[in-house]
Amino acid sequence: MKTYMDDSLMLHTDLYQINMAETYWRDGIHDRNSVFDIYFRKLPFGNGYGVFAGLERVISLIEQFSFTESDINYLRSTGYQEDYLEFLGNMTFTGTIRSMREGEIVFGNEPMMRIEAPLAQAQLLETLLLNVINYQTLIATKASRMMQVIGNGTASEFGTRRAHETEAAVWGTRAAYITGFAGTSNVRAGKLFGIPVSGTHAHSMVQAYQDEYVAFTKYAETHRDCVFLVDTYDTLRSGVPNAIRVAKEFGDKINFKGIRLDSGDLAYLSKKARKMLDEAGFTDAQIMASNDLDEETIMSLGAQGAKIDGWGIGTKLITAFDQPALGAVFKLVSIENEHGKMVDTIKISGNPEKVTTPGKKNVYRIINNASGRAEGDYIALENEEPQKEEKLKMFHPLHTYISKFVTNFTARNLHEDIFLGGKRVYELPSLEDIRQHVKNGLDVFWDEYKRPVNPEQYPVDLSPACWDHKMRKIEEMLPQSAR
Amino acid sequence: MKTYMDDSLMLHTDLYQINMAETYWRDGIHDRNSVFDIYFRKLPFGNGYGVFAGLERVISLIEQFSFTESDINYLRSTGYQEDYLEFLGNMTFTGTIRSMREGEIVFGNEPMMRIEAPLAQAQLLETLLLNVINYQTLIATKASRMMQVIGNGTASEFGTRRAHETEAAVWGTRAAYITGFAGTSNVRAGKLFGIPVSGTHAHSMVQAYQDEYVAFTKYAETHRDCVFLVDTYDTLRSGVPNAIRVAKEFGDKINFKGIRLDSGDLAYLSKKARKMLDEAGFTDAQIMASNDLDEETIMSLGAQGAKIDGWGIGTKLITAFDQPALGAVFKLVSIENEHGKMVDTIKISGNPEKVTTPGKKNVYRIINNASGRAEGDYIALENEEPQKEEKLKMFHPLHTYISKFVTNFTARNLHEDIFLGGKRVYELPSLEDIRQHVKNGLDVFWDEYKRPVNPEQYPVDLSPACWDHKMRKIEEMLPQSAR
Repeated sequence: MKTYMDDSLMLHTDLYQINMAETYWRDGIHDRNSVFDIYFRKLPFGNGYGVFAGLERVISLIEQFSFTESDINYLRSTGYQEDYLEFLGNMTFTGTIRSMREGEIVFGNEPMMRIEAPLAQAQLLETLLLNVINYQTLIATKASRMMQVIGNGTASEFGTRRAHETEAAVWGTRAAYITGFAGTSNVRAGKLFGIPVSGTHAHSMVQAYQDEYVAFTKYAETHRDCVFLVDTYDTLRSGVPNAIRVAKEFGDKINFKGIRLDSGDLAYLSKKARKMLDEAGFTDAQIMASNDLDEETIMSLGAQGAKIDGWGIGTKLITAFDQPALGAVFKLVSIENEHGKMVDTIKISGNPEKVTTPGKKNVYRIINNASGRAEGDYIALENEEPQKEEKLKMFHPLHTYISKFVTNFTARNLHEDIFLGGKRVYELPSLEDIRQHVKNGLDVFWDEYKRPVNPEQYPVDLSPACWDHKMRKIEEMLPQSAR
Repeated sequence: MKTYMDDSLMLHTDLYQINMAETYWRDGIHDRNSVFDIYFRKLPFGNGYGVFAGLERVISLIEQFSFTESDINYLRSTGYQEDYLEFLGNMTFTGTIRSMREGEIVFGNEPMMRIEAPLAQAQLLETLLLNVINYQTLIATKASRMMQVIGNGTASEFGTRRAHETEAAVWGTRAAYITGFAGTSNVRAGKLFGIPVSGTHAHSMVQAYQDEYVAFTKYAETHRDCVFLVDTYDTLRSGVPNAIRVAKEFGDKINFKGIRLDSGDLAYLSKKARKMLDEAGFTDAQIMASNDLDEETIMSLGAQGAKIDGWGIGTKLITAFDQPALGAVFKLVSIENEHGKMVDTIKISGNPEKVTTPGKKNVYRIINNASGRAEGDYIALENEEPQKEEKLKMFHPLHTYISKFVTNFTARNLHEDIFLGGKRVYELPSLEDIRQHVKNGLDVFWDEYKRPVNPEQYPVDLSPACWDHKMRKIEEMLPQSAR
């Protein structure tokens, strides 16, 4: 077996992209301008909103868009011909990308990103972009959903050992951080992204010393910040008393931050432990909990009056356990024809929700100036300017009788220019800015859209012109689809 | 924000590992020999067996076990002191690892891997090893489960766009390949691992040409191997007839391999399409199916007599959709004491299944020489030699009345030496060897253990000596756990 250095993600794509690009190239249409939308149809977890993530990574991957020598060598070994390999070897990205900002609140059926590029280039990017955006948006959405339940509590991401290989662990924890998680246990994520890291000790340390008191003492002798894990033997009879004993003995020599519970009845144990800590005078000591937590468990613990200040969340977050895939797609909405004219395209489906919306579009968030809250999102064709309208008609794109008129509004275009003609024009925000953007973004939504159970459905509507255009395209294509 | 090159996976660990290692180092016990087992308790998906994977990746990561300058710089920035950083900076792996071969059939509660190393080193490896082994074993198990249903059909991995970031896509497809998947759509996996890649075109090509017949023709003009995707407009009225038309027109100029169905009623459409292809004389043309397939759907399609020769499997495989995490753990089973003597350790739990099994152990697969089939797995202490016994008593470790005597058997030790004193002594098998090992490994099991629905539970027993040792340890530790 030949060993190649893993020096590129250009081949991190489906083979059909390379085969289609070859057809386009040999047929001379590879440079035709094409427009693709990236969007998902349905929000995951039954949540009322999503959080778009993955942009920073996508930008960095596009900036490295170039086949390496080892890529070309590999393709050669599978039988591609030299002329096509030369074309691929010389390819650079020359397209234009508009996208939501990372951390934007997003809903189903609205383009998160719009790629306008020579057909072959766009096609070669599809798989990689979806891979990154699907995962990061999924985890950001899951994490934000958890934060709705956690509220002012502190959440830490602890899931590396259950993540799907190494990249998911760090990019997943970054996605969680932007939605309000306080930090992570993954040190590499701290190094790469500057996310705060936390963690003190595991059961194995207590096992290694074979005595819980000795173990806590040894830890306290070597670290100022102490959170003792108290369930190795018996939480209330051994763990909490030993933690209190060591905290008293060390006094000001350590910063006794609290204890962590990792098994058993967290509601019961946390209340008992709280009482023991308070009675010992450690009213500021916090109680952290971990062990397969998700938003449902956290909500239930809250309802039971559990005394938990911090949540260590692993498996259920980093794998998006109850729905581990987001189905974002990459759909052609417009393409240049042989006369150099852009022709909008549609994909018909027996399932009305799966019919694509043709044309270059923008997504506007319509904010009611009186309430400061969002009335709905409004997808309009490129040449429309809803921000200049006095009155907007908003109606449901499938059930059109559901409609309203909106006046006294601000229409914020959710897309920003990222690449223009292959050149990045977008200044990357800091992680803290992205985090703030999520927070600000959520503030414009009524609570009804943000509750985790049975949220109200937020309107994502097409402008009348966009809707008419789509209907005309359906009519145009229908005879073909039924021939 | 400082930008660090991502030049190392040494910090791909939980912070508590680094903090515990500091305690051990400052306390002078960091070099004490320790033994950790990696195992999971419960098989995923209700499957009757698992497939161990991840060894090759683990070996390569351990061979790179060394903190880089950027790792140390980062740790310095978070406040670690110079003396400890110097210790970390000089650390190399000096331990001994025994492990199952990649592709070994594995069950709950048996060590897949045994790490014997200085305490601090073992602790620093835990998170990374679990991250890799949990994911790859999960996907190999899911893929093998799917292959039980697919039988002699052909399966291809198509899931990159739904994988959890980039590494999961390629290592997941490798895990699927070793269990019998024929190939992948991910070109990078082809480049890295030599896995066969496949794929022709997507709906977007038909959209780009805005005419299905033209699109198929263009593809046929530029590629010898043709599989036409027939559901962009209407599978039976447009897609299949256009595929047949192009196949006839091109004749021997192309290798018309068949068609792919990606939506609709796959049972109905495949039977109709088969008839159309046969009547047109293309009896060798294959029908491939895709669209959210999993083992249940495939089984149901088989029961309905669907005429499907090949399966393109994405989301449900690469995310292990119905159970996206395996819970393998890393547990201390023995540690050197202050006198240089190894002391076996145990972790007690209120949940009997969670009590660890102390001591250095080997796992044997007991093969009945008459039938050639496995009687059960047998976990014995390091000093036992079951392969030399005439008769073995095998009994259930929790429900000990379930027991049997086995004679005329071969006991195969499932562990091999991988590292000895920090040096790799294991020759990496080729991917084809690993694939063959899975096949051979499954051959020794009765079908009852391999069926996907309600499989029989395969016995994983402790030797009497191992069981007695565990019971003694429980008694020893119980007073402490209840004090």
